[in-house]
Amino acid sequence: MTTTSFDRMWADLEPVGRDAGSGGYRRYAWTRTDHDLREWFAAECATRGLDLVEDRAGNQWGWWGDPDTTPGVVIGSHLDSVPDGGAFDGPLGVVSALATVDALRDAGFEPDVPLGVVNFVDEEGARFGIACAGSRIITGALDADRARSLTDADGVSMAEAWRSAGRDPKTLGRDDDTVRRVGRFVELHVEQGKALALAPDGSEDLGDPGRAVAIGTDIWPHGRWRVDIPGEANHAGTTRIADRQDAMIGLATVIQAARSYAVGLGCVATVGKVHVVPGGVNAIPSHVTAWLDVRGRSEHVVHAAVDAVSSEAGRSGATTTPESWTPTTTFDTGLVGRLREILPDAPLLGTGAGHDAGILATHGVPSAMLFVRNPTGVSHSPAELASTDDCHHGVTALTAVVTELCTGKDPESMSDAR
Amino acid sequence: MTTTSFDRMWADLEPVGRDAGSGGYRRYAWTRTDHDLREWFAAECATRGLDLVEDRAGNQWGWWGDPDTTPGVVIGSHLDSVPDGGAFDGPLGVVSALATVDALRDAGFEPDVPLGVVNFVDEEGARFGIACAGSRIITGALDADRARSLTDADGVSMAEAWRSAGRDPKTLGRDDDTVRRVGRFVELHVEQGKALALAPDGSEDLGDPGRAVAIGTDIWPHGRWRVDIPGEANHAGTTRIADRQDAMIGLATVIQAARSYAVGLGCVATVGKVHVVPGGVNAIPSHVTAWLDVRGRSEHVVHAAVDAVSSEAGRSGATTTPESWTPTTTFDTGLVGRLREILPDAPLLGTGAGHDAGILATHGVPSAMLFVRNPTGVSHSPAELASTDDCHHGVTALTAVVTELCTGKDPESMSDAR
Repeated sequence: MTTTSFDRMWADLEPVGRDAGSGGYRRYAWTRTDHDLREWFAAECATRGLDLVEDRAGNQWGWWGDPDTTPGVVIGSHLDSVPDGGAFDGPLGVVSALATVDALRDAGFEPDVPLGVVNFVDEEGARFGIACAGSRIITGALDADRARSLTDADGVSMAEAWRSAGRDPKTLGRDDDTVRRVGRFVELHVEQGKALALAPDGSEDLGDPGRAVAIGTDIWPHGRWRVDIPGEANHAGTTRIADRQDAMIGLATVIQAARSYAVGLGCVATVGKVHVVPGGVNAIPSHVTAWLDVRGRSEHVVHAAVDAVSSEAGRSGATTTPESWTPTTTFDTGLVGRLREILPDAPLLGTGAGHDAGILATHGVPSAMLFVRNPTGVSHSPAELASTDDCHHGVTALTAVVTELCTGKDPESMSDAR
Repeated sequence: MTTTSFDRMWADLEPVGRDAGSGGYRRYAWTRTDHDLREWFAAECATRGLDLVEDRAGNQWGWWGDPDTTPGVVIGSHLDSVPDGGAFDGPLGVVSALATVDALRDAGFEPDVPLGVVNFVDEEGARFGIACAGSRIITGALDADRARSLTDADGVSMAEAWRSAGRDPKTLGRDDDTVRRVGRFVELHVEQGKALALAPDGSEDLGDPGRAVAIGTDIWPHGRWRVDIPGEANHAGTTRIADRQDAMIGLATVIQAARSYAVGLGCVATVGKVHVVPGGVNAIPSHVTAWLDVRGRSEHVVHAAVDAVSSEAGRSGATTTPESWTPTTTFDTGLVGRLREILPDAPLLGTGAGHDAGILATHGVPSAMLFVRNPTGVSHSPAELASTDDCHHGVTALTAVVTELCTGKDPESMSDAR
């Protein structure tokens, strides 16, 4: 029954916002596609008799029980995507949460603690540039005025996008009442690397059901740095190599230093975006800006990598400026401990990606994550994958977790955790 | 008198199209600024009693004498600029040509052969992407239909730009009558490198009047190649370095190979423009396109450099596609020989830049160039420079050239050359 409802919902979502050319999803906040996804979520909550509440960021919460009496256990994730993203990042958590409600109902389970299913809005930040906008707004991590004034690539502000979606942007803002209702949050998500797909000896093993689902322990520290590389504008045809100060040469240094120090220090470093001035085929670049994204198991390692790249780039006059920094987010020890008791076979996994669970965790909500095996290891791309069997294993694991967390014995430990 | 008229015209043009922020010029074809420059040129021709004719590309020709009787000697250049270009590239040739007319008049000179002063339109191709558009259109090197359909960064076609400028784009096209009127073309231009600023021993010497002006002998062979570097889209935070196929790494290889083979082979190679897909700070690039511009003294050297870069980039799956190729343009031997007789002290200089003189030279018009010393060696930038003294030396040299070429004894050799 569980698998039946999961498969039916998965098929419902499959065509929504899919680009025929790339095969990837383009589900951006407050667009027509986003509206269709929100309507779908509301209808699924209605079918199950869940009370639908929207908070001041537009996140949707479907409640089984009254969280104003007792803070509840919340499961879910998000439905939006990166440009040409995969089908699983986000929707897997939302669909698994709704399927978990079905499994509980089928089993005749009655929660002693309210159970919520959430659809966070604008998790990827694909449109307005700030990831986890929905959870950041309600926790106050993203200021309401700043959020309203963020603009998309067409210059449309979030406030204007809200009005186009028939919403009043004045109501957007921090929402303590909503956050208070969340006693614990468990976000199920597709794994975005290959750790579960590889057996401890490094060989690929997609058949072991014991490695279908992992417990998330922490989010790696991560940050963004802007590297500004100076040059001197000049003609590409008439300027001798000896007379050049070509900013593009510095870019090659940054790219290769980032790769080499990441390998040496065991972290990940990426140059994913560059801006070249003036950007003409026959013009020696007078300035190149490169953005460096670095993440790793420890803050020390990340800083060591950035310092090394910065120092190497600095030899040709480049300057490195931090743009954002998120320290290690450790998920709630008590909650992670409970998940380990409930799912004793599940491996433990840190992740290099940010999530709404990380935002809630740093704002006082005991949070944790479950990761479902991804055989390609690829995410944010149409190649992102989880097998149907592993998706069903995910629902089974989430159902086991909720069954334990929503029984009467747990509210005390929950209160302890707050 | 010559220097007075030069200095006055130079001061006239100084503010036109100059950006207050960068200090560079933004003089793009068929804009309001271009219109102002064309009106200025027309007025200067009128003041001197030159007959102004516009051809089917919109190039402006001011004639002293009737070129339909005898093909004339033409001097001049262009008034448009690259984005944030310098003051000299183009205008120096136009202003020097007009000042030469003044010098001839002051000397009481009466040409036996018609003398023309030209302002070529859209030489830099800054707006529509094709350099030397004016000379290419009249010689048929650029097809009229293709020219009309070229678009600028805002999607405005050249045909639409013509209509906005009050012109009928149907009249745009090849113009054999105009080309036939040009018996010989001598384009004076600021040097775009440092060859004249350096004494033979390599030390800087800006005082030697014998090195103020050079005779252009040829335009180096040059081309553009597009290098497509494949990668695999993935999440920057969760994908292990070992699992990555990051197109940006291939870009670093291309940049460094281009530099290293240019040094090794003694040519110039530039990566001035790149396009990164998807271009997100936290996304591993799935595709990078880099454009490679290579020029050198011989076609063999240029091809050797491109083959070497292509082969090195190919190891990570990149493909290299030629986008344009111009073989060596040798200026007319007879005309260059005459310039050497007239200016026996002037050094000979090849150039890596394209010019309208090169387009005319490959379409049957005996053409050559004069280069005026540039102490910075910088071009296509606000740092582009020629000293006032050297500008005056340029006018003096051009006056000497025209005096010789426009006397009665030269039409025969001109006819021979055709």
